[in-house]
Amino acid sequence: MVEGGLIVVKIGGAQGIDPGPFCEDVAALVAQGRPIVVVHGGSHETNVISERLGKPPRYVTSTSGHQSRYTDRETLEIFAMVVGGRVNKLLVEQLQRRGVNALGLSGADGRLLEAKRKSTLKIVEDGKVKILRDEWSGVVERVNVSLLRGVLAGGYVPVVAPLAISTEGEMVNVDGDRAAAAIAAALGADTLVLLTNVPGLLRAFPDETTLVSYIPRDEIEAHMVFAQGRMKRKLLGAQEAILGGVRRVVLADGRAERPVLRALEGKGTVVE
Amino acid sequence: MVEGGLIVVKIGGAQGIDPGPFCEDVAALVAQGRPIVVVHGGSHETNVISERLGKPPRYVTSTSGHQSRYTDRETLEIFAMVVGGRVNKLLVEQLQRRGVNALGLSGADGRLLEAKRKSTLKIVEDGKVKILRDEWSGVVERVNVSLLRGVLAGGYVPVVAPLAISTEGEMVNVDGDRAAAAIAAALGADTLVLLTNVPGLLRAFPDETTLVSYIPRDEIEAHMVFAQGRMKRKLLGAQEAILGGVRRVVLADGRAERPVLRALEGKGTVVE
Repeated sequence: MVEGGLIVVKIGGAQGIDPGPFCEDVAALVAQGRPIVVVHGGSHETNVISERLGKPPRYVTSTSGHQSRYTDRETLEIFAMVVGGRVNKLLVEQLQRRGVNALGLSGADGRLLEAKRKSTLKIVEDGKVKILRDEWSGVVERVNVSLLRGVLAGGYVPVVAPLAISTEGEMVNVDGDRAAAAIAAALGADTLVLLTNVPGLLRAFPDETTLVSYIPRDEIEAHMVFAQGRMKRKLLGAQEAILGGVRRVVLADGRAERPVLRALEGKGTVVE
Repeated sequence: MVEGGLIVVKIGGAQGIDPGPFCEDVAALVAQGRPIVVVHGGSHETNVISERLGKPPRYVTSTSGHQSRYTDRETLEIFAMVVGGRVNKLLVEQLQRRGVNALGLSGADGRLLEAKRKSTLKIVEDGKVKILRDEWSGVVERVNVSLLRGVLAGGYVPVVAPLAISTEGEMVNVDGDRAAAAIAAALGADTLVLLTNVPGLLRAFPDETTLVSYIPRDEIEAHMVFAQGRMKRKLLGAQEAILGGVRRVVLADGRAERPVLRALEGKGTVVE
């Protein structure tokens, strides 16, 4: 199952990533008969639209030191609109133009991703701990494997937006990298590719010559110290995928030509 | 196949329609085991968001006298975002909260709806005929029946946004009523319900006491003269559905309590 195994690829929502070369690679892999699931982000585009709608994003620092978006109900609805509508459908269109029968879904559709909702955030602001209510984000707890397998069996390429549904049927915002990791683990994927706007994990960010090219599975934890900002979530996603049985995770450069094919050749940070 | 036959319901994008009672009805029908496909609009919400984004909608009159939205590329992308993201996902959430396993798709996903793109519009403005280019709308020509049947067989309620994909893989805006009609015909539905913000076809719009309660199938054409504005498209959709083999179409009031159940009881304009 190494040649021909399932690939899950996450394309980032960060600025400066052109979906063209990404879609070319997906089309090439589909033409070879490789089953693929695409997961995407959309945080940058959500920020752009939010600003234009007069609701600028608010980033907060949790008591554990993570930076994250404060997703109140209004922000959730903008996020759902942008990632579920704009980013998802434009990616589907770009793939369809290249002959890939892409099928866009959000994690809320058909309970594709079930999450535990986090309705409050404990944050640190001006040196004080505060509680923010009306939070609409969550952590994926269950993947609807039969739905994804059905879509793949129908000959479609699923394109998944990072939303999920809670047990109570509430829609929530989830982290795209960790959603991709959960999907890869649930489907028993051979490879998970997490594209980003750096060449991989850098020992001394932002110096790109300090790329860590290989992390054995029992040394992921020891590398957490090098992960800055968004890279923390990616490395956490990589860890979750490996623990969930995925053979190999590649953190790779989404800005490059042939971004997915390069990653599959091992260019980037390979965790296995 | 009359009791228990497939129902296709279109919920409008017009102002003043509360999705709550609509979702209650869908949940009641699903609890009875009736297969349902939901199709929705989103023109009003698209106009609201377009205005807020500084791109007010432009309506034009075609040479055949129809009023329609001019969908340039920027408008298409806003339309896709609003109907494919906001309207679709909020409807999915409302259904999920009521225990319905709703699964949102746009017509572009998995080539659910294939359309012929209309890339130019011939319009009348200031008494002159003009050609508008960069138009991104289309007319549905093919429904992916196996995809919809697969989703229904999986126990999901498909919720379809009015987008489609052209043969060249271009995303286009399509009319929701006619898309619902095409889906109902392709699936051999028993009943198509088109909800609107009036009680049905009115002989003397807007006088609601002049409701036409019944139209035999060979008298649809003769009733076209009474149809004003959006109702023209609905009656055209009804005609296409009936010609396509749907047993009964009901044009009914989406503002009422129990809007779908009332329509199934024959309240509104019944075409059969």
